[in-house]
Amino acid sequence: MTNTHLPQHISKQFDNELENIRSRVLSMGGLVEQQLTDALKALTDSDIELGETVLKKEYQVNGMEVSIDEECTHILARRQPAAGDLRLITAVIKTITDLERIGDETEKVAKMAIDFAEKQGPKSYYIGIHSMGNYVRSMLHEALDAFARMDSKAALEVARKEPESDDQYGAALRQLITYMMEDPRNITSALDAVWAARAIERIGDHARNICEYVIYFVEGKDVRHISIEQMEKEVRG
Amino acid sequence: MTNTHLPQHISKQFDNELENIRSRVLSMGGLVEQQLTDALKALTDSDIELGETVLKKEYQVNGMEVSIDEECTHILARRQPAAGDLRLITAVIKTITDLERIGDETEKVAKMAIDFAEKQGPKSYYIGIHSMGNYVRSMLHEALDAFARMDSKAALEVARKEPESDDQYGAALRQLITYMMEDPRNITSALDAVWAARAIERIGDHARNICEYVIYFVEGKDVRHISIEQMEKEVRG
Repeated sequence: MTNTHLPQHISKQFDNELENIRSRVLSMGGLVEQQLTDALKALTDSDIELGETVLKKEYQVNGMEVSIDEECTHILARRQPAAGDLRLITAVIKTITDLERIGDETEKVAKMAIDFAEKQGPKSYYIGIHSMGNYVRSMLHEALDAFARMDSKAALEVARKEPESDDQYGAALRQLITYMMEDPRNITSALDAVWAARAIERIGDHARNICEYVIYFVEGKDVRHISIEQMEKEVRG
Repeated sequence: MTNTHLPQHISKQFDNELENIRSRVLSMGGLVEQQLTDALKALTDSDIELGETVLKKEYQVNGMEVSIDEECTHILARRQPAAGDLRLITAVIKTITDLERIGDETEKVAKMAIDFAEKQGPKSYYIGIHSMGNYVRSMLHEALDAFARMDSKAALEVARKEPESDDQYGAALRQLITYMMEDPRNITSALDAVWAARAIERIGDHARNICEYVIYFVEGKDVRHISIEQMEKEVRG
């Protein structure tokens, strides 16, 4: 894929190293996305086996984080990158931390799916979570896509979607509180659903973080802790 | 403070830059610790004003993260550090991310404190959270102390404390679920207490992360995703 934002070097070897790092981040992202898809499917289908598969694969996500991190440190030491190259490496170091934390949250969703299937909790608890899960999964997909193309405008679009995921979380939570109030015997299984909802909501936050690193790389501006309106100015300005 | 782990350079200026970064991380850590202390006090004293002070200061934590991060990028570009210097900079970049997230969690605790005081919820809800909060605050204090002295053995001691904070969280949660079951009218205010407990538990996780970066800097080994027993081998080995 050609990308005008990516730097070109006299050293072909250095180009290859940067390209390699980028493609490893995308593989890690692909794995994390698959894990999330499976965890959500385990939840809605009460599929214990699929939930356990997610738990078993979690170590792969951690391993990828550690090895990409090491490779970034090597490049920093060996190539002493500056400007855009340096921003790419710092964006990668931060992105893989968020991907690893998405892996942690996905693990929680898978654990809740197993618990819930074992307890045979009512499926109605998961209606709100199901649609919220799909929404957040598409946010993650688009964030990884923005990273792949280093497209700050696409990254901004994903960041804009986060308030909607917060709203969906709030609605799912209110529904679950209603179930708890209707019958206190529902409390423990409804709380499991609450944890799953909260984990998914955090995945949305991490997807947004990844978009901020893409904008940082492309625009050279740190857009954390600012409003969407300010962020738009930085990207379109 | 003399520290045998910290590198000495022919360039006095570079020494000063590294020392400056370290002391800024410690200032940021001090602010975050104070914020946590105040948020916990706001919770136990139902002190709305103190809770609001915490919310007002949160932007300072974010500002410190952004400015230290920038300074690290400048040092990477200008000094092209290697070996221990490079490990120090990467440890700092990661540490400030965790400090900023502790700030976010502290903000949640302060918000819950304000909500709870306004609703005049029963103080008994916060007994378990109070002792857990003190435990986690001391973990954070000791983690920052280990960072200040770059002491990997002290860092290991903090990491060992994390399971105890998880146990305290589990106990607080079970107590709160009991309150909810006793009377469904308690559910919403008990859930506020659950969020506060969860935020505090996460602060313990972030304190542990900081300790892992200290060990990484001192021992040159990445100790994330490994057991405490393996971690001990790396530190004492």
